[in-house]
Amino acid sequence: MKLASYVGGKWVEGRGEGSPLRDPVLGTELARASTEGVDMAAALAHARATGGPALKAMTYARRAEMLGRIAEVLTANRERYFATAQANSGNTQADAAIDVDGGSGTVKYYSFVGKSLGERNHLTDGAFDRLGKDEAFQAVHLAVPVAGAAIHINAFNFPSWGLWEKAAVALLSGVPVVAKPATATCLLSYEMVKDVVEAGILPEGALSLICGDARDLLDHVAAGDVVAFTGSAETARQLRARPRVIEQAVRFNVEADSLNSSILGPEAGPDSPEFGLFVREVVREMTQKAGQKCTAIRRALVPAERLDAVTEALAARLGGTVVGNPRNETVRMGPVVSKPQQKAVLEAVAALGREAAPVTGGDGAFAPVDADPEVAAFVPPTLLRCDDPQSAHAVHSVEAFGPVCTVMPYRTPAEAIDIAGQGGGSLVASVFTADAEFAGQAALGLAPSHGRVLIVDEAVGKASTGHGIVMPMCVHGGPGRAGGGEELGGLRGLRFYHQRTAVQGPMGRLQPLAESAAGISV
Amino acid sequence: MKLASYVGGKWVEGRGEGSPLRDPVLGTELARASTEGVDMAAALAHARATGGPALKAMTYARRAEMLGRIAEVLTANRERYFATAQANSGNTQADAAIDVDGGSGTVKYYSFVGKSLGERNHLTDGAFDRLGKDEAFQAVHLAVPVAGAAIHINAFNFPSWGLWEKAAVALLSGVPVVAKPATATCLLSYEMVKDVVEAGILPEGALSLICGDARDLLDHVAAGDVVAFTGSAETARQLRARPRVIEQAVRFNVEADSLNSSILGPEAGPDSPEFGLFVREVVREMTQKAGQKCTAIRRALVPAERLDAVTEALAARLGGTVVGNPRNETVRMGPVVSKPQQKAVLEAVAALGREAAPVTGGDGAFAPVDADPEVAAFVPPTLLRCDDPQSAHAVHSVEAFGPVCTVMPYRTPAEAIDIAGQGGGSLVASVFTADAEFAGQAALGLAPSHGRVLIVDEAVGKASTGHGIVMPMCVHGGPGRAGGGEELGGLRGLRFYHQRTAVQGPMGRLQPLAESAAGISV
Repeated sequence: MKLASYVGGKWVEGRGEGSPLRDPVLGTELARASTEGVDMAAALAHARATGGPALKAMTYARRAEMLGRIAEVLTANRERYFATAQANSGNTQADAAIDVDGGSGTVKYYSFVGKSLGERNHLTDGAFDRLGKDEAFQAVHLAVPVAGAAIHINAFNFPSWGLWEKAAVALLSGVPVVAKPATATCLLSYEMVKDVVEAGILPEGALSLICGDARDLLDHVAAGDVVAFTGSAETARQLRARPRVIEQAVRFNVEADSLNSSILGPEAGPDSPEFGLFVREVVREMTQKAGQKCTAIRRALVPAERLDAVTEALAARLGGTVVGNPRNETVRMGPVVSKPQQKAVLEAVAALGREAAPVTGGDGAFAPVDADPEVAAFVPPTLLRCDDPQSAHAVHSVEAFGPVCTVMPYRTPAEAIDIAGQGGGSLVASVFTADAEFAGQAALGLAPSHGRVLIVDEAVGKASTGHGIVMPMCVHGGPGRAGGGEELGGLRGLRFYHQRTAVQGPMGRLQPLAESAAGISV
Repeated sequence: MKLASYVGGKWVEGRGEGSPLRDPVLGTELARASTEGVDMAAALAHARATGGPALKAMTYARRAEMLGRIAEVLTANRERYFATAQANSGNTQADAAIDVDGGSGTVKYYSFVGKSLGERNHLTDGAFDRLGKDEAFQAVHLAVPVAGAAIHINAFNFPSWGLWEKAAVALLSGVPVVAKPATATCLLSYEMVKDVVEAGILPEGALSLICGDARDLLDHVAAGDVVAFTGSAETARQLRARPRVIEQAVRFNVEADSLNSSILGPEAGPDSPEFGLFVREVVREMTQKAGQKCTAIRRALVPAERLDAVTEALAARLGGTVVGNPRNETVRMGPVVSKPQQKAVLEAVAALGREAAPVTGGDGAFAPVDADPEVAAFVPPTLLRCDDPQSAHAVHSVEAFGPVCTVMPYRTPAEAIDIAGQGGGSLVASVFTADAEFAGQAALGLAPSHGRVLIVDEAVGKASTGHGIVMPMCVHGGPGRAGGGEELGGLRGLRFYHQRTAVQGPMGRLQPLAESAAGISV
C-alpha cells in the first residue's frame, strides 16, 4: 500500500518508491509513503484560500461543534487505531491508549471549552483603555484568527495525539491545518484523517495531511502562516533557521525533547509514601511508550544519602518489567519505533556511559519476549547512575529517547533545583515531597526553567495525572532546550493562532467590536 | 569625547578610533564611540549574575518605585536632553519631545501600573484548573521572571523612547537590561543612562549600556535570555538567524519598520471633517521626525474619485512646511539622521519612482533654511502618486525611512483593506471615516495584518493620539514584515520577560503560590 497525501481537497499519491513504514517488532513493511511530485506550494495556497475563509465564516461555537463530531469519529474507530498503533509503533495496549485516547480526548476538551466562546468570530483581550483626558477616545485589544495556514510538523512518537492536540486548537481558532506527521509512524495519522475526511465534517481545505517527506513545504510559508513543530531540538534548530521562515517572520512554535527531571524530596525516607510514589513514577516514565515521550523523566534527582536505596528500588522494579512483543499480554513495555531509532538510543546511552555507570540494561543479557532481537527494535530499560552530576555534562544534555534514565544525588534543596536547571530548559520537572516548604521552594525555583512543574505527595498519589502526561488545560512546552514554545493551556492555546491588535478610536466604534467578541484574554 | 560603555558595573572605554556621532545639520563630530576590547560575554554574565538576583529580590511595587525615580531624573534633565536631541538627531523641539518625553512618560506609566502588582515577586495567570475527578489535585499557571538578561537592540530614531520603553518593562519584570542603542545617535542614551547611574537608583548590573558596535554580543546569549530588537526588517532577519540565537531558542522579539497605511473613508468628500483630518495626519506623519518613525504613514489610500483632490491638498500643505535647521524657530521639519541615511532614503525614493510619479520633492529645487545642503542630511517632503497600486510592488515593500509617502486610489472598501494588507504585515493602519459600517469592516479586516488600527472621525479628531504615536497601554508591533513581535500593551508587556509555567499538585501546595502572586493574565 502506498499512502496518499490529502492536499488541495483530494488524495494525491506521490511518485517513486517512497519510504517504508515498518512494524518495529516483526520488521515487516506495512506501507510506503512518498510525496514526490506533491505540490507543497499549491497545498498551502489551497488551505489558505479555501479552508481559511470557510473556517472563518463559522463561529467558535460552530467550529467547536465540528470538533465534537471529529472526536466521535475517532472514538468510534478506537479499536482499529489500537491495532495500527501496535503494528506501526509497537505500542502496548496502554501505550496506544495514551496516543489514541489522548488525541480524541484533547479534541473533545477543545470542543467543550470552545463552545463557551459562543457565536462569535473574534476575541477581545482585556478591558477598554483610556488614552487621554477625553473619554470618547479609547482603545480595545482584539484577537482575530491569523490570515494564513497552520503548518504542523509532528514527531513519530504520537501520530494521533500529536496530530490532534495541534489541529484541535487551530481549527477552533478558524485556521486551516496542513499536518505533516513523521513518516515512520504516519499510518495512524493517515487512517484517522481519512476517516474524518470521509465523515464530511470539515469544510474543504480545513485539514490537509502530508504523508512522507516535507520536501520544500517550509519554503512556501508566508506572513500570516504559523508553524508548530514537535521533535528533536536539533531538527527544531534547522527548521527555525530556514531562510523563508526567517524572511517572512513566520510565528514558529517549538516543543522539543528535553532533559526532564524528577526530584525526590529531601525528607523522603525509604519508608515514606513519597519514596514509593517516586520510584513508581520513574519506572513508569522509563517504560511507558518505551520511554519515547518528550516529557519522560531523564534525570532522577535524589538526596545523596538515598542514592543507594533509590537505585536499588528502581533496579528491582525495572527487573520485573516484562519487555517484548506487545501482542503478548504479559508484556508491559514494547520496542522503540524503528531500528534507526534503536541505534540512536544505544549511541546516546554510550555517550551517557562516559559519565554514568550502568545499573540495569547494560549487561547484554537482555532477551525480549516473543521477538527476534536481530529484527526487532528493542532497548532494555536502562538505568544509569551518575555520582557527580555537578561535573557532568552529557547527563544534562544528551537525550536518549528511549527507556533510559540517570539517577543522581543532590546535597541540598537548592542544589536539586540548580541541577534540574542544568538541562538548559525543560518541559517538566516533578517533585515528590511531603515537605510544604520544599514544595514551594521547588515550584518557584524550577518555574523559570520549566514549562510545567508537578508536585506529588501521598494525598494526591492516586489523583496525580503523572509526570509525563500532557493535560490540555495546562500549557505544554518549555524554555531553552525544550524549544521556547507553548501549546495547549486551555483557551490560552488559541493565542498562537490569533493576531492581537490594538484598536483605537471613538468609543461608539469600539463598543460594537467588543460586544461582538468573546472576551477571553489570549 | 569618546563615549564609554557601562558594563560590569563600571564605565569602560573601547580602544581604537571608534565611529563618529555627528550633527546631521552642521556635519560636525559630537563624539566617538568604540566597543573594541569590551568583553560582551562578561557584560552579559554580570547582568545575569549580579543584576538579575538583585532585581528579583525586590517586589514589583519596589521596582515600580524605582521606575518612578528614573522618570524624575529624566524629567529633571529634560532641557539638556532636548539640546542633545537637536545636536545629534537634528530634532526640532517637537520631535525631541516625542523622544524624550515619550521615554520618561513610558517609564512613568509603568511605574504607575507596576505599583498595582504590589509586594509580589511572581504572577499567576488565570484560575485553578481541575485535572480530574479529585478536587484535591489541580493546576495553576504561574509567571515568573526569566532567568537571564534582556538584550535590547534599538534603532537610531528614538535614542530615548526606544531605550526606556523596553527597559521599563524589563526592569519592572525583574530582568536586567543590556541596552545597545544605535551608534549614530547614542549620545542621548549615554547621557540618560549616565544620569540614572549617578543617581544610584538601580542595583548594580540592572542596567548596562553598550555605546558602539554590538560585536559578538549575540554570540553569548543563553537560554533564559531574551532579545528585543527594533530596526529594519533586513537587520532583524540577520540577527534572528544568528546561530547562537537559534541554538539556544532565545526568545526574540522584533519590531520592524513597515509599510503602514492610512485610509480615507469611501464617504469622505473634500468638505468633510474626516478629509481634513486625514490630510493633516498624512502631512504630520511625513514631516514629524522627518518621517523617521517605524509607524509613519507610507501609503495613503483614498477613494479613486478623490485621488486628485487629496493629492492637491497634501501637496499644498507640504509646500507650506518649513524645512531646515531646527535651531531656526520657523522650522517645522529637520534633517534625517545622517548622510548615509539621506542616501538610503533617496535610493528608496528612486525605487518607488519606477512605479509612482513625484508630486512634491522631486523637482530638485529644494533649499533647507539655515543649512548647507552639501553638508546637511536633508530630504525634502516627498509625496508620490501611484495610480495602479494593484499591479505595483515597490510601493508595498520598499520603505523610504524619511519624509516620504505614496498616495494611491482604491475602488471599494474591500479593496482598500486588501491593498493595506499587501504590505505583508504592518505596525499600524489608520482609517479616517464617519461611516460606522466601514469603520467596523476596516477594523476587523485590517486586524489580521496589523498590530494596531486607529479609527478617527470628527468627534475624536482632537482627542486622537495619532497614527504614529505609540501609547504604552496598547500593544506595539505587527505581524510579518513588521517583525511578528509585540511590545508594551500595559501589563501585557510583562509577558515577554516572564516564563509561564503550569504547576500541578495538591491544592494545599498551590494555594500559597497563587495567594502570594499578583493575579494578572500575561
